[in-house]
This record gives sequence, structure tokens and C-alpha cells, in this order.
Amino acid sequence: MNAETRLAKIGIELDPVCRKGHSTTAIRRYGDLLFLSGFGPVDSEGRPLMQGCVGVELTQEEGFEAARLCAVAMLRALKDYLGDLDRIEEWIKVLGLVNSGGDFWGMPATINGFSNVIVQTFGERGRHARAAMGSANHESQYPVVVDAIVRIRE
Amino acid sequence: MNAETRLAKIGIELDPVCRKGHSTTAIRRYGDLLFLSGFGPVDSEGRPLMQGCVGVELTQEEGFEAARLCAVAMLRALKDYLGDLDRIEEWIKVLGLVNSGGDFWGMPATINGFSNVIVQTFGERGRHARAAMGSANHESQYPVVVDAIVRIRE
Amino acid sequence: MNAETRLAKIGIELDPVCRKGHSTTAIRRYGDLLFLSGFGPVDSEGRPLMQGCVGVELTQEEGFEAARLCAVAMLRALKDYLGDLDRIEEWIKVLGLVNSGGDFWGMPATINGFSNVIVQTFGERGRHARAAMGSANHESQYPVVVDAIVRIRE
Repeated sequence: MNAETRLAKIGIELDPVCRKGHSTTAIRRYGDLLFLSGFGPVDSEGRPLMQGCVGVELTQEEGFEAARLCAVAMLRALKDYLGDLDRIEEWIKVLGLVNSGGDFWGMPATINGFSNVIVQTFGERGRHARAAMGSANHESQYPVVVDAIVRIRE
Repeated sequence: MNAETRLAKIGIELDPVCRKGHSTTAIRRYGDLLFLSGFGPVDSEGRPLMQGCVGVELTQEEGFEAARLCAVAMLRALKDYLGDLDRIEEWIKVLGLVNSGGDFWGMPATINGFSNVIVQTFGERGRHARAAMGSANHESQYPVVVDAIVRIRE
Repeated sequence: MNAETRLAKIGIELDPVCRKGHSTTAIRRYGDLLFLSGFGPVDSEGRPLMQGCVGVELTQEEGFEAARLCAVAMLRALKDYLGDLDRIEEWIKVLGLVNSGGDFWGMPATINGFSNVIVQTFGERGRHARAAMGSANHESQYPVVVDAIVRIRE
């Protein structure tokens, strides 16, 4: 079963990406590594799907959902770049940033919304080293932003 | 036209770096990759040129200028390390940290102060994957800190 | 003198690690690089040894000690993974996150608690590129979290 079939099984379908030009790029390749930009929970046109501070305006469950939407946005960009998600050999490193406040310390549980999608889709090859932290705030008031390094088949 | 000529055209000149010894290093090489430490907006002796929190003491325009000064500080260190900035083949990844508070969410616009200098100097090879986020605070009250990974010619 | 002997000399002994399964992993290997997850100041069973916000509940000295404990936790995981710490050739990059508040800007001095252990243990090969920043908060109220990239002997 390929990566997209597994995504479909957990209810995720990937729309085509609407690309914009600026001084950064969603993905930068170095050999067989892809360095990904930080992704918020956005739709295929880059519009925010969720906004707010986890632990203040949003619950941990909503933060988890935001992290899941970051995974969808990142996989959409990877599919756009690679053509086929099965060219991804393994997930190396993830940095998960939770816009959080008050007495909220559930960063790992929140970012699991991202990590779980990756492991459900890529299995053992999806398990990654990860740092998860609380950030002061994000562009467009994203509750969660995630970046990553993945290894691809040449 | 080489990288330093392009920098001069946008009004940036690179002074020699005053190096200090400690347990860290500004640049660590791995094969043809350079991993750079976080750079604040400092002069060639490492003294802060700007301080304060973007969205509170500083405007977004001032944050943009601070990010531009981070680029100058980083390019100064790269020139010191490489001798010649044209040994840089491409910019891979950038992490931009904005010390921000209040209702400020303009991280990408702020960190563009950094990214624009890089793209003006290196063209398409300067476009990078990037994560930009709000951080609680920085050493020396820097408004912006940026780290990076670049690829060089062996 | 090997790495573990040098650690013993600065009073650090590494217990065996108690491993837990989840969608992330403490260490992900790519060729001769190891990408490490963020480590808080935890014991060998993953229980927090220190908690709180540096500059509010904790002094800079306590933050320094927390960073030192992050180094111990990370070295414990590396020993568990590699068998022998002397397989580490060099330390490339470190990201140090200080849960800090109030008027606290001593991130580098705090994260030196981590970096000093590394340099005392690995000498010049331990000097690393580093970004240190203040984060809003961390899982389990860790005062400090540190991740890293190291190069190993194949």
C-alpha cells in the first residue's frame, strides 16, 4: 500500500498546491535530503485553516488538529515537489513550534498531531528525531508551525 | 558580478571580524555544508546594533532592519571563514527568530530583511527553505536572530 | 583519555536509558550524521530533574545546571545508541532553548551549561555552531531543551 493510499485511509486527500514566488522556497534539496520550510495549517492556496494560541484561545485537542493540518500542508508540498510521496525514504528531523501560552506544557502531545500522520503514512520510516517547543507567536497567528528534513530516493 | 560587488550595490560593506574564543564557533563545516550559529544584529566586534522587542519597543520596519543587519553580520563571518563569498554555492535552510510580543504576527515580513539581502546577493542560489517564528527573548536583547545552512564549493 | 573518562572526571556518570516507544525517536541517523531530538533535563527513566522558567522561578545558575543536565541526558542516549561515545567525531550544530521570562537575556550563559560539558568531554571536536533562544515554554516545564547534530565514525 503506498503513502497516498494510507493517507486516504486516514481521511486525508492532497489538493494541488498554489505556488507563490518570493525570496524563500517551500523545499530546498541537498543531495538526497530535502529541507522543508516551516508549514502552518494552511489550505492549498496558503490560507490559514486555524488561528490562535494553544492553551489560551485553543485547547490541546485543537492544537493537535492544527498540527495534523501542518502535516497535510507539508505532504501537499512534498507531493507537488516529488510527484510521488513514495519517493520519500525516511523522515529525519522535525521541529515543532506551538504558539502556546498560560500554563500550557503539552507541546509533545500537540505536535503528535503532525508526527502521527507521518508514522501512519510512512510506518517505521516515518519515525523522526524531534524537538517540540512553545513559541511566542507565528505569522498569520498559526497555532502550530512545523519544519522537517526528509531523505528521498535519488 | 560577484557577491561582494552586489552587496556594495545595496550599500553593504563587510568589515573584518573580531573573533572571540569560547565553547562554540560561528561556523561548523560538514563536507560541503556550513552550519552557522545564530547571528544577531551586531557590528564586527560583536556589539549589538539594535535591541528590543518587535511589536513592543520596535516597529516591523525596525525589525526588518535588524534582520538585514543579521544578514550583514552572517556574511561578514562567512567572508572571514571562506575568504571569498563566491565560494557559496547555495543557501539551504534559514531559521529566523523574531523577539516579538503583543499582537505582532509579521515574522515573515520581518525576516525578509534577512532573506532579501541573501537573494539580492546570490540570486536564485540564495532562495532558501525557511522557518520564521516569534521567540520569547534573545541574548543581548537582539530583536532578531538568524541561523543558516549553506552549501559551498569544496 | 576517552570521552567517558573525561565525563567521570567532571563528575558525570551515564546510567542506562529506559526507552519508550512512540512516533518519534531520540536519534535518527543519516550517513555519518546523527540528528538528535530535543532533550530536557531528565533522568534515565525520562523523569524531569528540574522544572520552571529561567528568570522567573529559576536563577541563571539553575538554568546553567539544567542545561548541564540536558547534556547528561543527551550523552546517555548517545552512549545507548553508539555503545561508545568515542565513536563521536565532532559536534556540528546545537539549538538551545531556554524557557525564560521577565527581563532575562542570558541565553548563551545558560546554554553554556550544555556546551561546556561537550567541550570538556570532546575537546576541540566538541566546539559547535549554536543558536540559543528564549522559548515560551516546554513540555514537562523543562527550563532548558537542547537538540543537536553530531558526526560519527562510520
